[in-house]
Order: sequence, then C-alpha cells, then structure tokens
Amino acid sequence: MSSLQNVLDRIDHDLEPATDRLFDLLRIESISTDPAYRKHCADAAAWLVRDLKSIGFSAKSVKTPGHPMVVAKHHKAKGAPTVLFYGHYDVQPVDPLSLWDNPPFEPKIIKGKGGAKQIIGRGTADDKGQLMTFVEACRAWKTETGNLPLNVTILFEGEEESGSPSLIPFLKDYKNELKADVALVCDTGMWDEKTPSITTALRGLVGEEVTIHAADRDLHSGMYGSAARNPIHVLVEILAGLRDTNGKITLPGFYDGVPALPKSIKKQWSELKFSEKSFLGEIGLKIPAGEKGRSVLEMIWSRPTCEINGIYGGYTGEGFKTVIPAEASAKVSFRLVGQQNPKKVVSAFRKYVKESLPADCKASFTPEGASGAIQLDYRMPELQKAAGALKSEWGRPAVLAAMGGSIPVVGHFQSILKMQSLLVGFGLDDDRIHSPNEKYNLTSFHKGARSWARIMEALA
Amino acid sequence: MSSLQNVLDRIDHDLEPATDRLFDLLRIESISTDPAYRKHCADAAAWLVRDLKSIGFSAKSVKTPGHPMVVAKHHKAKGAPTVLFYGHYDVQPVDPLSLWDNPPFEPKIIKGKGGAKQIIGRGTADDKGQLMTFVEACRAWKTETGNLPLNVTILFEGEEESGSPSLIPFLKDYKNELKADVALVCDTGMWDEKTPSITTALRGLVGEEVTIHAADRDLHSGMYGSAARNPIHVLVEILAGLRDTNGKITLPGFYDGVPALPKSIKKQWSELKFSEKSFLGEIGLKIPAGEKGRSVLEMIWSRPTCEINGIYGGYTGEGFKTVIPAEASAKVSFRLVGQQNPKKVVSAFRKYVKESLPADCKASFTPEGASGAIQLDYRMPELQKAAGALKSEWGRPAVLAAMGGSIPVVGHFQSILKMQSLLVGFGLDDDRIHSPNEKYNLTSFHKGARSWARIMEALA
Repeated sequence: MSSLQNVLDRIDHDLEPATDRLFDLLRIESISTDPAYRKHCADAAAWLVRDLKSIGFSAKSVKTPGHPMVVAKHHKAKGAPTVLFYGHYDVQPVDPLSLWDNPPFEPKIIKGKGGAKQIIGRGTADDKGQLMTFVEACRAWKTETGNLPLNVTILFEGEEESGSPSLIPFLKDYKNELKADVALVCDTGMWDEKTPSITTALRGLVGEEVTIHAADRDLHSGMYGSAARNPIHVLVEILAGLRDTNGKITLPGFYDGVPALPKSIKKQWSELKFSEKSFLGEIGLKIPAGEKGRSVLEMIWSRPTCEINGIYGGYTGEGFKTVIPAEASAKVSFRLVGQQNPKKVVSAFRKYVKESLPADCKASFTPEGASGAIQLDYRMPELQKAAGALKSEWGRPAVLAAMGGSIPVVGHFQSILKMQSLLVGFGLDDDRIHSPNEKYNLTSFHKGARSWARIMEALA
Repeated sequence: MSSLQNVLDRIDHDLEPATDRLFDLLRIESISTDPAYRKHCADAAAWLVRDLKSIGFSAKSVKTPGHPMVVAKHHKAKGAPTVLFYGHYDVQPVDPLSLWDNPPFEPKIIKGKGGAKQIIGRGTADDKGQLMTFVEACRAWKTETGNLPLNVTILFEGEEESGSPSLIPFLKDYKNELKADVALVCDTGMWDEKTPSITTALRGLVGEEVTIHAADRDLHSGMYGSAARNPIHVLVEILAGLRDTNGKITLPGFYDGVPALPKSIKKQWSELKFSEKSFLGEIGLKIPAGEKGRSVLEMIWSRPTCEINGIYGGYTGEGFKTVIPAEASAKVSFRLVGQQNPKKVVSAFRKYVKESLPADCKASFTPEGASGAIQLDYRMPELQKAAGALKSEWGRPAVLAAMGGSIPVVGHFQSILKMQSLLVGFGLDDDRIHSPNEKYNLTSFHKGARSWARIMEALA
C-alpha cells in the first residue's frame, strides 16, 4: 500500500503539469465527423503517441481509411493480468459557435456552480479529459515505482463521434495484439459529483440521415404552391408519424426484443433518490416527454428512443424566401435496448419512409451507424475489485448503473475480442457534452486519475 | 405610327448595348434580405439613378430605414396621361451556390432549350431584366423623338424580396409625388413564350418564421433522449398538422373569405389547353399535391396555400451528432385569395402553434409580411389598350390571367395612391426565379422593350 500512497501523492503533486498536458491535447481541433479537420485528428493521435512514449510505452499511430488509431503497450508486470484501456481522442463539432462563452479549443479553468473548478472546452469531458485520467495514473505509477502494476495495452480511437467506421475491421486485424483479460473503458459518468459509478448496461444506436426528393429543382411557391409537392411537408409528416400520441414509436416490430424491466431493478432504481423535477428543471423543462406511464429514469436507462437530431431544407438564412425546395433532410437516431436488432430497425425505418412517400417523390438514406445494446456481467470479478477501489477513493459505494448513451466499442470487444469491459468514468450530468460550453470538473480529472491508480492496483 | 416604328427599330438596333447595360446592373449583388449586402443594394439604386439621368429623367435615390427607393420623373408630354412605372432592383439570395452552373452575379448569354438565347444570372427575370425593358423603351423613345409620349414617373424598390418593410410609409410620404393615372408593374410573366399576358388577379402573402424553444441548452440524446422534449419533434408535429389528409389547411377560419370559382371562369380556364401533366412533368413530378378534387390551375390561380419554405434545427453539418437541440425553426407562408384577412391568418397560425405546445415549451414568431389578395378591374380602359399593343407586338391576343404569386405593391397602390395597376411582364414559367440558374430569355428582354414602346403609345 505504500507504493499506492506514493502514486496518489504524485498525482496530487503533479496536478498542474497534468492539466497543462490535457490543455495541449484539448487545443487540437480533432472533430472527426468533418473532413476539414482530418489533419487535426492526425495531430491529436501523434500527440498521444509522443506522450505515451514519454511514459515508457511502445506506441504507434496506425493508419485506417479514416482517422488513425493509437495503439500503445507497456507489458512489464510479470504474472499480472493484461488490461486494454479504451478512450477516444476525437470530439464533436462545435456549432453553434455563437453559444460558446469561450472559444471551444482554447481550454481554461473557470469557477463554476458552487465554486467548483471546471475545465471548459470541447472534448474536456468527452473524451480527452477522461482518457487522460488513465494516462496520468500510468505516469504516476511509472514515476514512483518504475513500472505499472498491470500489463497495459492502450487503444485510442479517432472516430467515436462519427460512427466508428474503421473500428470493426481494425479490431479484427489487430485481434491478437489487443487481446487482454478485461477492457477498461473511460467514456461514462459518475452518479453525481460525490458518488462514483460503474456502468453495467448500454443502449445501442442506429443513426440514419434521410433526404426526401420532390421536384428536380427549387420552385417559386407563388407559381407552384399546393400544386407541386413540398418535400419539407412530406418530411415533417413522416417524422411526425414516428411516434404516436402516447409517445410510443410506431415502426412495426420496433419493440421486439425490448425486455420488461424486472421488479427488482425497478425497486432498486426507485430507491435512488432520483428527482424527475430536478433532472428536468436543471435544463429548463418540467414535463417528461416520451412514453406515457413510464418514469424518466426508466426511459433514459431502459427504454428505446427515437430522436430527430437535425433537420434542414429550403431557405434557412436571414429573412424570407418563398421557395419550395427540391429536397429536405433529417438526421434521425434510435437508441436500442435488450435484444432489439439494429439491422431490423434500419429496415423498418426505411420501409416506413418509403411507404409514406407520394409516388413521385424519392427518399435516400445515409447510414450513420447501427449497433445493438449491451448488458455487462454483474458477476465479473473485475467489477467487484473496481467497485472497492472506487469506494476507497470517493468514500461511498459505486452505483452500478444502466446508461442511456451508447458505446458501441463495448459490443465489439465482446463479439470480436471475446472480452468483457469495465466502464468507469468521471463525467457529470451537467458536463454539456456535445453542446456549447462543454466542461469537465477539475475534481473529475484529479480524482479520476487517483481512481484509476487504485483500480490498477486492485486488478493487479 | 412612323415615330413608333422608328422607336421599335431603335430598340432592335441597340439590343447589344441594352444588354450590356442590363449586365452592369445584374453584376451588382443587391440581395435585400441579407444585411451583408446593404451596400450592394445602395449601389444598384445609384446605378439606376445615373442611368435614368442619362435618358433625361430627373432621378434620385431616396433613403429609407431599409434600402433606398429610386424615384425618377420625365413629365414633358403636355396633355398626355401620367403613368407610374414600378419594378424592384433587389434580388433573392443565391444559396445553394453549388447548384449554379455559372456564378449568379456574372451574367452571360447561353443557348437554352430549343436554341433560344437566355440571359442567365440572379435577377435576370426577377426583376432587373424586366424593369430594364421599360427603361430601354423610354430610352428609344427619347433617342428617336426627343421626348416620351407619356408623363412617366418611375419607382424602383429595393426591398421587394424581403417583405417591403419601408414601402407603406414611403408611399404615404410621397403620395402626391407618385400620383398618376395608372401604375404599370413589370414583375409578372407571359402565358407561354409566344403568348403575352396581362395579370388581373394576385394572391396575398403571409410569411411567418416560427421557433420552438424547449430545454435551455442543447442536450445529449443518450442522456436525455425521450425524457426531455425535442423541439424538432414538436415542430414537425405542428407543421404536419397544418394540412389534413385531403390537403386542406386546418387553421380554424382559414377559408373565410375564399370565393367559390365562378362557372364562367372555370370554363374559360378549362379552355386554356393547360396540361397538368406537362406543368408537373417539366419539374420532374407527376402527382398534384394540395387539395384533393381541385385542378392544378385552380390551385395555383384561385386557391389559398400553405407552404413550409424553410426548416432547420439541431445538427445539420456533415456526419452525425446525437444532439437534442434547444430550439428548432421553420419559415411558413400562406398565399391568400379573395377576402381572406391576412391579420386573421397570422392570428390563427400563432394560436394553433401555441395551443399545440407542451406546457414547458415556448414559441416565438418573426413576421415576414402580411398582405391580402388583389382583384383588378377587367374593364379598365388601360387594360384594353395594353392588350391591343401586346397583340400587335406578339401577333396573338394577350391572355388575361390570374397569378399565383403575390405583388403586394399593387394593393398598396390601390389603397394608398387610389390607383389601379396594369400588370404586364415577360417572364416565363421556366425562368427559375428564386432558384439557382435563374434566366430571362433574350426574346423576353428584346420584345419586352418593344411591347412597352407600343403600350406607351397606346396609352398616350
């Protein structure tokens, strides 16, 4: 235990240089979904390779058809287990830029709500700040003991925010190199700012961009209004029809494979002191949306969803233009649970859209990922060890929680690498990930690194 | 008649320099709806003032809170009637720029369908090419006879494409200066490329931009999906509800004041050899949209409409972002006929939107104009004279047609200046006004000027 204490002290002592390193990484505009930032993504990968080498990892940036993967190894703990740590260095786009109080790629520390120090900027919580908690834990172990307590392989992806097109072929090609006893994934959140959490269930995600095509050109609504089909009208009718008046999703077969919530889980969740009023009040809302008759926690943790994440068509600039556009588009996503089949959901969605079209209109689709839901094994020994380490750090037991978001890599680790994942993260509900003014509490960064230092020892 | 023949010959002879002048005007990027083009609008007004002065008009650019009005006078035809000619020098925005085959503000002449020469560029047909037909007719009269056959006042507006916010106060202030026996408005089209037309009925226009506000920030759909209201969902449901399954507009009271189509008009229209198949086929469509049981001609000439001209919300860039946005917006317009009251339509629309909102969402509205429909007097003597002049030029009688579009200035001339308007224009259905690759046939420009030269004499 004395070496662990030294490691923890080292993390405390080096918080400032650690924050500086994180800032360096945050300044790189690694937006993976936009081809204009291709070089920035490669720069972020190269930065990580350099940093991992400085700790003593053998590290490389591996080309893919998209953005590079960072693969690093430090296997010098004889007889100890091997872990594969996963994070992603790419970030979400930053629009609308006007809503940022501070430029998104100029990170700084501000005093937030209740005086808590917050690191603000794109990628602070999702996922650069999180992945660096593990890197800093490794650095401190190395500095204090000259080694790591575990054999560590690291995989940093650069396409997590853009549907991970290269991930599956990459995992297949590097199967042997990446094989480990367990995967550690740091892309999730805490229960609240004082209570750690291990995520044990994840929803799947289907993303589809749909475009409705009507006339072969934009038309003047004074000349063609009513007579010519307006693709925005067609689109809004189709999208409105995706949910019925009770908030249920109408696609035939959509709920196939959705498990009923066991009473025991329902009971556990009802004891969590989760307040719908404050969960919604925090974001300026009062009335739960979605399926009638289900609690907010049930909806965000256990139910499938259908959301329209973007819509555009016609004239969207300042002022007015009486145009009937040639086409209109929407980005639609579905979160999946249980045994819902992502391919069947894609088919049902496309079939519904096509069947709703007037005979002289067309629809085209761009797939943006399709992954099923994941249920992790509650009985994994690593989970119990990590829970103990987290309790030591935070002074409270870790909540074993379901999660609304989707981390498809966990499914691929299961199916391709035959490996379970341990999902531990230090994000908070108010981190505004994917939104303007994203932040990561300095405490999350600091105690996150300390938590990993403890988990590494617990797993050793 | 000999001086008219000289004037017509002059127009033929000077077609090339006339086209060069039009090109100069077309190169000025006078997009009125976008504040970034404010200076360009002023430049277009100044260009027109210079050109009119060169013909012998007293001309000035009059400041307004928006873009300037061009007012010019040539009152030297003793005993002859006075006409007020109206056109607008502002143009529509040009997006999406990628769909233009040629830069929108670099006009040139190309060979179009069937070998007809076309002037291509933004504003060629709407309305710079049209207004210059009248200016060129005046120039030819002046060159050949040293005078104009009528007393001519000219009003060129710079805000027609952005809801004409300064027009009503301006007409009130300049009432005496603008008073004339009849207004000549050149912003409409021909029946087809060989058949001239005088427009005798115009629909009104209500434009509203609506924004639905839900949460106070953008949210991550994995964390808040279903639980938090998605304003895009709210918006598409509201917009989808604007029309029923028969294409009827559902706003209560919307059809109040819509006249039944008289049998005589219905008969006249049915004799027009209008082909729905080719009207829709021309733009790549087959099935009439809008109200079931009504003909396409009835819909575009005599029925009110509701169109969504633009929609936007959430992530609209390349790739995908699983965001639930804080707000979503649409631009909606209604074309009005008969006695429909534009203010009542605005109220009914806003009431419907507000009543459709969940209690924790808000809607905000930006008005983009509200004008009623216009029916002109078939018995005006000027209409008969103009029809005769057009027949002489084109060799066929002019069709007296209703028009789907809206030219609110005609209503203001009626109500404020107590003056009827004669609507003669030379645009064609395939001019792609408001769209990429807008064009104006060289024949429209050339014979348009000749037509005005004849109409001026007919009215003298």
